[in-house]
Amino acid sequence: MRAAIMRQGTIQVADVPEPRPGPGEVLVRTLACGICGSDLHVLQHTHKFAEQSGGIGGGIDPDRDLVMGHEFCAEILEYGPSTSGTLVPGTRVCSMPVLIRPPEAKSVGYSHEFPGGYGERMVLSEGLLLPVPNGLSTEHAALTEPMAVGLHAVRMARLTPADVPLVIGCGPVGLAVIAALKLAGAAPVIAADYSPARRKLAEQMGADIVIDPAQQSPYDSWAATARASAQGQLAVVNPLSGERLLPPGVFFECVGVPGVIDQMMVGAQRGCRFVVVGVCMEQDTIRPLLAISKELNLQFVLAYTAEEFAETLGHIAEGRLPVEPLITGRVGVGGVAQAFADLRNPERHAKILVEPWRS
Amino acid sequence: MRAAIMRQGTIQVADVPEPRPGPGEVLVRTLACGICGSDLHVLQHTHKFAEQSGGIGGGIDPDRDLVMGHEFCAEILEYGPSTSGTLVPGTRVCSMPVLIRPPEAKSVGYSHEFPGGYGERMVLSEGLLLPVPNGLSTEHAALTEPMAVGLHAVRMARLTPADVPLVIGCGPVGLAVIAALKLAGAAPVIAADYSPARRKLAEQMGADIVIDPAQQSPYDSWAATARASAQGQLAVVNPLSGERLLPPGVFFECVGVPGVIDQMMVGAQRGCRFVVVGVCMEQDTIRPLLAISKELNLQFVLAYTAEEFAETLGHIAEGRLPVEPLITGRVGVGGVAQAFADLRNPERHAKILVEPWRS
Repeated sequence: MRAAIMRQGTIQVADVPEPRPGPGEVLVRTLACGICGSDLHVLQHTHKFAEQSGGIGGGIDPDRDLVMGHEFCAEILEYGPSTSGTLVPGTRVCSMPVLIRPPEAKSVGYSHEFPGGYGERMVLSEGLLLPVPNGLSTEHAALTEPMAVGLHAVRMARLTPADVPLVIGCGPVGLAVIAALKLAGAAPVIAADYSPARRKLAEQMGADIVIDPAQQSPYDSWAATARASAQGQLAVVNPLSGERLLPPGVFFECVGVPGVIDQMMVGAQRGCRFVVVGVCMEQDTIRPLLAISKELNLQFVLAYTAEEFAETLGHIAEGRLPVEPLITGRVGVGGVAQAFADLRNPERHAKILVEPWRS
Repeated sequence: MRAAIMRQGTIQVADVPEPRPGPGEVLVRTLACGICGSDLHVLQHTHKFAEQSGGIGGGIDPDRDLVMGHEFCAEILEYGPSTSGTLVPGTRVCSMPVLIRPPEAKSVGYSHEFPGGYGERMVLSEGLLLPVPNGLSTEHAALTEPMAVGLHAVRMARLTPADVPLVIGCGPVGLAVIAALKLAGAAPVIAADYSPARRKLAEQMGADIVIDPAQQSPYDSWAATARASAQGQLAVVNPLSGERLLPPGVFFECVGVPGVIDQMMVGAQRGCRFVVVGVCMEQDTIRPLLAISKELNLQFVLAYTAEEFAETLGHIAEGRLPVEPLITGRVGVGGVAQAFADLRNPERHAKILVEPWRS
């Protein structure tokens, strides 16, 4: 079958072996698969990714071909052995990008054994299939995976009503976090990005205050907003200076490049919690004394639980998580290489969907 | 009065101005003051400390003399204006190393305005004075401050009964953490240090398992212990492999030199919480992808609350926190420079007390 493959640091179109469903597995036709920032990272830093990621891509061999793609909606074609076949062929489904082959669970989109969503067909685990609720479009359903990342990150932040969140970076990850914060009832949500297009998307996803860091410090804006939002609430006051203490900050790192965490440490107030969602695959430099003197907490997060994934699909279907603004392009298998290049320009794109059935 | 001062990266004996108690302040005679690892760091990295530490030493000018010393027990000499004078002169007292001069609270031992405990006399805030409970020795009372650091670090770890703690580094900070873990009922407590003398101290402070990292990986030992301690408890099992999942790790970073956090990230299991107590004043390098793929949490901690400080003094007085093993030397003002040098050898010393009344 046709697929876009990663080969020696490039994306190429190739004929790859037809996947065959094993016990408990289902053969599906890929309808739409989003290109994830992680895939761009992996293409650029394949060796580092193979070395460092215990959980995600421990088994990747940079010298072997790989069909990536883990944000998909697909259609059931046929069932393998030891399946129950509850959903009729033709049913549209989503799934966490995980294939359960006991005693292991392997990542769909980061395995050499079976293809991800940048190819015409995939095999998935029957037990993980979630039928797309009636009426939800295939394209919106395909965004379940990236939106679940936002839902999980916000869950891991252990938000309290007093928290004032700040989202640094409004790429797909930051946008998913913004939507999940609004879903969780956080207000106001502050977001920052250098790109005008991304800032516009942040507004569309629900951010209340959107900052251009070239014009204004996101941390100063955060402090001003936190101060204002604390008005009228039970005041916590510094007994010495009489100054009102700011509510705790919750900063989401959604950039994933070296230097950002340290910069956030400089900007943060005492007791701030960071949720690190952006995937930085390079070495990073921090000054621990900054974090110590402010008693910062850094929660690094990855992916989502099965429950959070299913919940996210439901929220999208019910219109509680906006996804339409994210989709900025559609390509066939032959357009994936160019899409990877185009995605490096934040002004042009947020999420490009690969539709392998396109000619 | 006589004091050991820090001047241009050296420790010297000098005559410094007599401190005079302002409103709400009390003049005290320093009886004993421990030399803290932070003071050694500050001597070595004065400029970095002055730049980076928002909370601790923001006001330090590397070109001005400084009388350090913030782990003390002292005796009341006379009261300044606007004091109540409840405790009679001659009463031995401890205090958090903070001087309240509204609208600010300044660090005793890191201020150019008034001396710390490496001088014959100090001024302290009356409101922070805690009388030394009857019968507790001055030397043991002087260890309240470093032991409170351990108590606070353990409190910030939010321990659950299932947690298996690992302490990396058995200098005074690690030893205080070990004692606080035992006080909190944690068992078994695992500790690691390259120094035989420090490992012996770790045992004396209550560590159940003490590891020499040159012989054995602390992380492998932790995993083996965690596996054993999970036996008999409600088993959490990986549904795919049938393997028992390990209880959550809580790792205490008590070394404070670059590279240790990254090393701990390599050794940690998924979901591990780090409490970073060691004060690293240099830049540090981490690989965020390691932390992300294991969803690690890093809690950086500093000092203690007023309540924790008072509680610690009580625990020492009641014999619930061992401190005697820590004291390995005593010097007068003239011996401080040599003591700073001696403390760089972990085989010789843990805590040296400065007793400025010694000739």
